[in-house]
Amino acid sequence: MKSVNIGICGLGTVGGGTFNVLRDNAELITARAAARLQVIHVGARHDSPACDLAGIRVSRDIFEVARDPEVDILVELIGGTTVARELVEAAIIAGKHVVTANKALIAEFGNEIFALAEKHGVEVRYEAAIAGGIPIVKALREGLAANRIEWLAGIINGTGNYILTEMRDRGREFADVLAEAQALGYAEADPAFDVEGTDAAHKLVILASLAFGMPLQFDAVYTEGITELTTQDVGYALELGYIIKHLGIAKQTDQGVELRVHPTLIPDDLLLAEVDGVKNAILVEGGAVGPTLYYGAGAGARPTASAVVADLIDLARADVSARLPALGVAIADLRNVPIIPIEKVKTPWYLRMEVADKPGVLSRVASIFSEQGISIEALIQRAPGQGQTLVSLIVLTNKAPQGSVDIAVSEIEALETINGKVTRIRVEALDG
Amino acid sequence: MKSVNIGICGLGTVGGGTFNVLRDNAELITARAAARLQVIHVGARHDSPACDLAGIRVSRDIFEVARDPEVDILVELIGGTTVARELVEAAIIAGKHVVTANKALIAEFGNEIFALAEKHGVEVRYEAAIAGGIPIVKALREGLAANRIEWLAGIINGTGNYILTEMRDRGREFADVLAEAQALGYAEADPAFDVEGTDAAHKLVILASLAFGMPLQFDAVYTEGITELTTQDVGYALELGYIIKHLGIAKQTDQGVELRVHPTLIPDDLLLAEVDGVKNAILVEGGAVGPTLYYGAGAGARPTASAVVADLIDLARADVSARLPALGVAIADLRNVPIIPIEKVKTPWYLRMEVADKPGVLSRVASIFSEQGISIEALIQRAPGQGQTLVSLIVLTNKAPQGSVDIAVSEIEALETINGKVTRIRVEALDG
Repeated sequence: MKSVNIGICGLGTVGGGTFNVLRDNAELITARAAARLQVIHVGARHDSPACDLAGIRVSRDIFEVARDPEVDILVELIGGTTVARELVEAAIIAGKHVVTANKALIAEFGNEIFALAEKHGVEVRYEAAIAGGIPIVKALREGLAANRIEWLAGIINGTGNYILTEMRDRGREFADVLAEAQALGYAEADPAFDVEGTDAAHKLVILASLAFGMPLQFDAVYTEGITELTTQDVGYALELGYIIKHLGIAKQTDQGVELRVHPTLIPDDLLLAEVDGVKNAILVEGGAVGPTLYYGAGAGARPTASAVVADLIDLARADVSARLPALGVAIADLRNVPIIPIEKVKTPWYLRMEVADKPGVLSRVASIFSEQGISIEALIQRAPGQGQTLVSLIVLTNKAPQGSVDIAVSEIEALETINGKVTRIRVEALDG
Repeated sequence: MKSVNIGICGLGTVGGGTFNVLRDNAELITARAAARLQVIHVGARHDSPACDLAGIRVSRDIFEVARDPEVDILVELIGGTTVARELVEAAIIAGKHVVTANKALIAEFGNEIFALAEKHGVEVRYEAAIAGGIPIVKALREGLAANRIEWLAGIINGTGNYILTEMRDRGREFADVLAEAQALGYAEADPAFDVEGTDAAHKLVILASLAFGMPLQFDAVYTEGITELTTQDVGYALELGYIIKHLGIAKQTDQGVELRVHPTLIPDDLLLAEVDGVKNAILVEGGAVGPTLYYGAGAGARPTASAVVADLIDLARADVSARLPALGVAIADLRNVPIIPIEKVKTPWYLRMEVADKPGVLSRVASIFSEQGISIEALIQRAPGQGQTLVSLIVLTNKAPQGSVDIAVSEIEALETINGKVTRIRVEALDG
């Protein structure tokens, strides 16, 4: 039987999980791959108490793994984009296939890395970089390969989804839930990657390139976090029949591609609206198949290891390299489609403002919308509480470009009868 | 660029859909496969008005396609298990890869067909046979290949799920919804395949073999339809916090494998409980990844074509045959695990009986359960209506083997104070 020799760099959460899944499931993995997948070399700054490294070569210098002539596949699980990039490129140049869980690396330097791999006739696999154990890369690259992908929308950051779920179900405020998530270890000490949307943007840009066959363009993603959301808006959205989710959305249009990460109101009867807590899910609209949805654990040692090892089994099963282009088509076939600037992207909007309880305010606000060509779908006005002079005015608009909404909002905020800022959240029906 | 020559047998709904998806998406399919997928030969009893066959060889004798030396891949879409089997075997012997959407053929004769394909060094692909356009075969065979699959549970018959959804949402009776579904063309004129569970059993046995690496054993599937379900039970289930779904369930246990299709109460907060109408979804519990769910259209011309063409693209991309064993492992590595007889399968139960409103009845029923070692989790008793002497008694049990429940139910039905039959539906929490 064929043997495939694996070198793992990084023995942290995912590295340790990968090592142990390969060991625990060795028998079934051998049967499925029709090959023995053996970890022969580990590169890590220190050993992991969770991993039994007896009989395995261990290097403190991870580049030793890339230089090891016996290693067939290098697994990069050190994270970051500087050393990780050097390591991955060294492995490719040495003729090794690479498997990585590093979303930042692929999103920001994938074009260069895939080109280098194509040149050297090796493959770079990254199933674990997006949505943990959910085989979404395989679904897009292979399972849905017959389809023109029209759009996709994903809950692709578990920490953010956990926070939103708690805000909705328990009426807790953002900062409060975040502090708890940090204490429980769900969120990093610096949670900006999660709650500001950078992590989701990394994943979205990879999904979009796979779906639409275009080069990775991380800088073109419009990114808005969930830090400004209030339980008040979460509650109003519920009243209107919507759930607020932090979505990554990629969509093909006649003008180009929309790439955006932002809080979004979605109808509460969608399956995606039911995805709660730290789970991830991606809804994909294919031209032939229609909507399909993929749900599961988006992070964690063993779910992420499941995806890393699936890539290893795929490479072991394949007798020939370059069978599956990293982004679904050969690099020369990637299309240079324009990314639509966010000002021109049209969605319905949820707008909330605090207005003086006086005659004429509503008609003034309505005429500002009208001047910008924005039509109103629904409107809720709350009666003022005892002794209060301000009322909440909630407006659901029809589809309008962000540029027009920007102008309308700044004009509304300038009115004397309006108190403070207008809260704005996009709405998506996700039905076409 | 490489060309791959395709022969399609059968130009019905799925055949026409496949032909048109290949034509409509030719450009993107060529880029993704790095090969031109050309339909060069069609075998069909008559032409289809939906398909432009200009320039394509057309045979009324479908075996001409299997004999055509220029055909690389034969697509079997004629259905049935007699001629279809001969056709597929002829193609394999002629050295062609085969793609099929025929669940009955694979479920009943897959062992023989896969063995023949292995012998002749070709591949048989069947993504379209299960859950239409959802890439669940690929997910199990490749995406989750690192996992010991603990169990899976699927809504894998759209017609049945449509009927159950209507019964729940509109309080309509089974026969009424079925008649409408037939009029709308959702259900066949002979709906037995759908509502008696045969269609689901075909799909389940394939999913189980893929998940657990064992030979196909269609005869071992326990199958119960939805024809006996009443809106009354659907309503009581809702009150208890459950949705009734017609599920295919496959589960590994220490004693062997459970394979069963039956109406099932599942907790209403599960994502699977939210899958309504004609949609399909499969929930898979992997040892490493935890639960993942795959959702989408389970039937229809273009969704099924999406899966057929995905298989074609996979075969075109692969330079070497036999890269992916049909059931995930080589035939010699399939395990002969026992299928557990349904009498020994343990689940909680929902039991409903109409009892006389007299003292002592409840204690008699309770003692019958107790004698069979069945413990009661919850009990609802409805007060009798005006002028009625019978009350509905609904019992939720803890886990109990079907054999014990059979005995208890027959003893209860023999009581004079019980009217008619006891309604029995299994409960699954689907959490481990």
